[in-house]
This record gives sequence, structure tokens and C-alpha cells, in this order.
Amino acid sequence: MISKSEIKLITSLKQKKYRTSTGLFVAEGPKVIRELMQEGMKLHSLYTTNLEVITSEGAVEISEKELQKISFLTSANTALALFYTQSNKEITSEGLIVALDAVRDPGNLGTIIRLCDWFGVSQLVCSEDSADCYNPKVIQATMGSIARVPLQYTDLSVFLKETQLPVYGGCMNGESVYSEKFPKQGVIVMGNEANGISEKVLKLLTKKITIPQFGKAHKTESLNVATATAILLNEFKRSSFTEM
Amino acid sequence: MISKSEIKLITSLKQKKYRTSTGLFVAEGPKVIRELMQEGMKLHSLYTTNLEVITSEGAVEISEKELQKISFLTSANTALALFYTQSNKEITSEGLIVALDAVRDPGNLGTIIRLCDWFGVSQLVCSEDSADCYNPKVIQATMGSIARVPLQYTDLSVFLKETQLPVYGGCMNGESVYSEKFPKQGVIVMGNEANGISEKVLKLLTKKITIPQFGKAHKTESLNVATATAILLNEFKRSSFTEM
Repeated sequence: MISKSEIKLITSLKQKKYRTSTGLFVAEGPKVIRELMQEGMKLHSLYTTNLEVITSEGAVEISEKELQKISFLTSANTALALFYTQSNKEITSEGLIVALDAVRDPGNLGTIIRLCDWFGVSQLVCSEDSADCYNPKVIQATMGSIARVPLQYTDLSVFLKETQLPVYGGCMNGESVYSEKFPKQGVIVMGNEANGISEKVLKLLTKKITIPQFGKAHKTESLNVATATAILLNEFKRSSFTEM
Repeated sequence: MISKSEIKLITSLKQKKYRTSTGLFVAEGPKVIRELMQEGMKLHSLYTTNLEVITSEGAVEISEKELQKISFLTSANTALALFYTQSNKEITSEGLIVALDAVRDPGNLGTIIRLCDWFGVSQLVCSEDSADCYNPKVIQATMGSIARVPLQYTDLSVFLKETQLPVYGGCMNGESVYSEKFPKQGVIVMGNEANGISEKVLKLLTKKITIPQFGKAHKTESLNVATATAILLNEFKRSSFTEM
């Protein structure tokens, strides 16, 4: 059984303002929930149609109909959990750092978080107007990665002014990545889907870098921000890898 | 005004079988429609709420309510067009070729088509069980790219047996891409989202290649197929670029 107030709480978490005020977010499906638990995310509550598939202290068995009522998915899985969001810790300014300047699409943010996990990025810094990492779409897409990648929301200009690391920006009119030798430690800034990196942040770049274009594509077109991040992260990693 | 039979035709095109039997597909929004026209795709019919925004010979002005009725989007744009699909032409076996082995997600296919456009891929070969390139989601995501990238559906095993080019496969257990020098011409095979490259196709590879993993991510995890394609295409292009 699930109470009306529980239903109200859960469905409210679709909106960022309620995730912020309660400090909770939703994850669905045994696989995602299990990964988050394994990664040490603190569980608030767990609802499932089958306690044999997934369980925890205080887990509540509910009917399929009840689960569909609280699920954000078109077809509910067999479990839904609430976890506590992680509070902002101190920002690392070492290693390879990715900084997002108003990346708005949850799908892109999710892909970028998975990439940061793959490439062992030490810190993902997001401007305050970037997509929320506890958006249900991000959680479902990133699975355990969300818990493994140190992620911070902050004023990007302040962070970039303070860092001692070189700051590279993914741009349309920079130096070709093929002629660069990238350092082991540095910041890669990626900009908004429609407008790229903002004027304010552009001024704080050490260097603009560009992925060369080879096709007949119009010069005004750009790579999707998540695929561009994939290529740039790989370029940084290949630089430090091949020097070893 | 739009007739009942027109509505029936258009809404049927959500399904692949009707796109195949009629040889038509749907594109929405003046920007996408204009790009496809500019790229020489043959227009079948055009419906718009405003002939001043977009027009063509035989264009039909309809009401917003009528447009919403035929639109596949949650909020209809101002125009919807039907275009003729392109019939399979002869397959090129020169240059850089991307081959997809059962890539099922339209979002991934759309991203890969845009990447092929960016990197000037000469041919995109898809196995018959890959996502359909005329799926409305693919069309909306790729815009003009769909018309610029030569794309074929075929029996992948037959194609790979016949090609004279070296065949590389994106795998979890291959040679690191950082230790490879890639040729200007070759085939890059990318596999299914869940299962990777099929057994049948694995046997036809000249070489398995892998993007090194650096993070704490589980060894069983993999990069998304579209981001992996981005990195591999960039690796091939950088090889031929840096040798110049």
C-alpha cells in the first residue's frame, strides 16, 4: 500500500523545485536502483511489485497499478526508489575537468556524465543554468555513472577565474584538435546547444579548440554537444596516453 | 483544407510498412523541409498554416487544428511535408564507410547520420534490421544530413564479404585505437546497442578496435554506440589528416 501523501511527494519530484526543497530524486527499475545503492547513494524509500526482485530495509510492496500511478515512465518497471541528492562538495581543481556552460538538454547531460565516467574525469562542473542532474531522464540514462562522477553546480565564471589549470573551449573557430598536444590536467568547456559558449565564458578561455569538419555539411552546422564532448575527451586522453 | 484520405495517408506514414509501400516519408517544420528541398529531395506534398513562411508548387494552406491532426509532434510546427524516399543506389566501396549491425534506436541512427555528414563518410551501410532512416525521429534529428549521406540497407555479411577494404569493428576487447594507424579507406562496423556486433559479422572483421576506458566504470559497461562512432570516426580522420 502507498499513501496519498507518498504519491504526492513522489510525483512532485518530476519538478526541479521539489527535488531541491526535499533533497530527493526518483530512480526506476531494479538495475538502476541497485547500481545507485552499490555506489553508495543514500536510499530514502523503495516501492516494488516484487520484493524478491529487489529489496531493502523498509521496502514496500505495492500493486502494478499503484506503481504505474507513481512512475514517470510510460510503462512502469517493477520498482521505484527515492534517493537523497548529494550536496555540493568542495570542487576539485585537479585532473581532467569538464565544464558545461548552459547545456540544457537532459539527454545530452546524461550522455556527458557517462562519458566522464568512461574517461575518468575528475570533476564535472555545470553552470547553474545547465540541466539538472537529478532530472528523471538523466538518472535513467546514466545509471551508476551519476554516483561515480563528481558533479558540481556553480558560477562557471568564478570557477574559471580561480582555476590554475589551462581552460580549453570547444568552439567552431579554434585551433584544430589534431595539431594540439593536450596536457594531462585541464578544463574542457562545452557550450549551450544553440548558442555555444557564452561571451562571458569565452573571455576566460586559454585556448579555443575545434574538431575539423570534412563533409559537405554546411559551415554553420555543428556537432551535437555530447558527441563533441566524446571526441574532445578522447583527444585529451590520447595525448597523455601516447606520451607514456 | 485537407481531405480524409490525405489525413489517412499521412498518419499511416508513422509506420515503416506504409513508408515502404508508398515510398513516402514525413518531415516537419519549415527549417527541416527547406533543407531537404535544398538538398534535392523530391517533394510529394506540402501543408502549412502560413504560405508566406514556406511554399512550393501545389502547397496547401491548412488550419492549425488540421496541422495538429496530421502532425507526429506533440506541438505541431507550421508546416508538414511528404517527400519521396530515395531508392537504394549502387553501394560505393571507396573511402571511409560506416556499417551498422542492427543499431535499433532512431536517436542513435540520427546522431550517426549527422556524424557521417560531418566527417565526410562516403557510405553508410545499414543491416536490414537497423532502425529505419525515414523514421520521423530520424528525419527531425538529422535535418539536411539525411540527404547528404549516401545510405543503404543491405545484407551486411554479403557486403563485408565482397568489399576489398579493411573492416574494423568497434568492440570491447580489441586493439586500443591509440596504437593504431588507420588507413584513409576502410569500413568501421558498429554493433547493436545491447549485444554489440553479431557473431556472423564478427567473423568478417579484419581487426577489432577498442576505445580505452579510464574511469571507475564497470568493465561491463560500454560507451553509447553513437558516441563511440564519433570517437572512431575522429580517430580515422586524424590518422589520414596527420600523415598529410
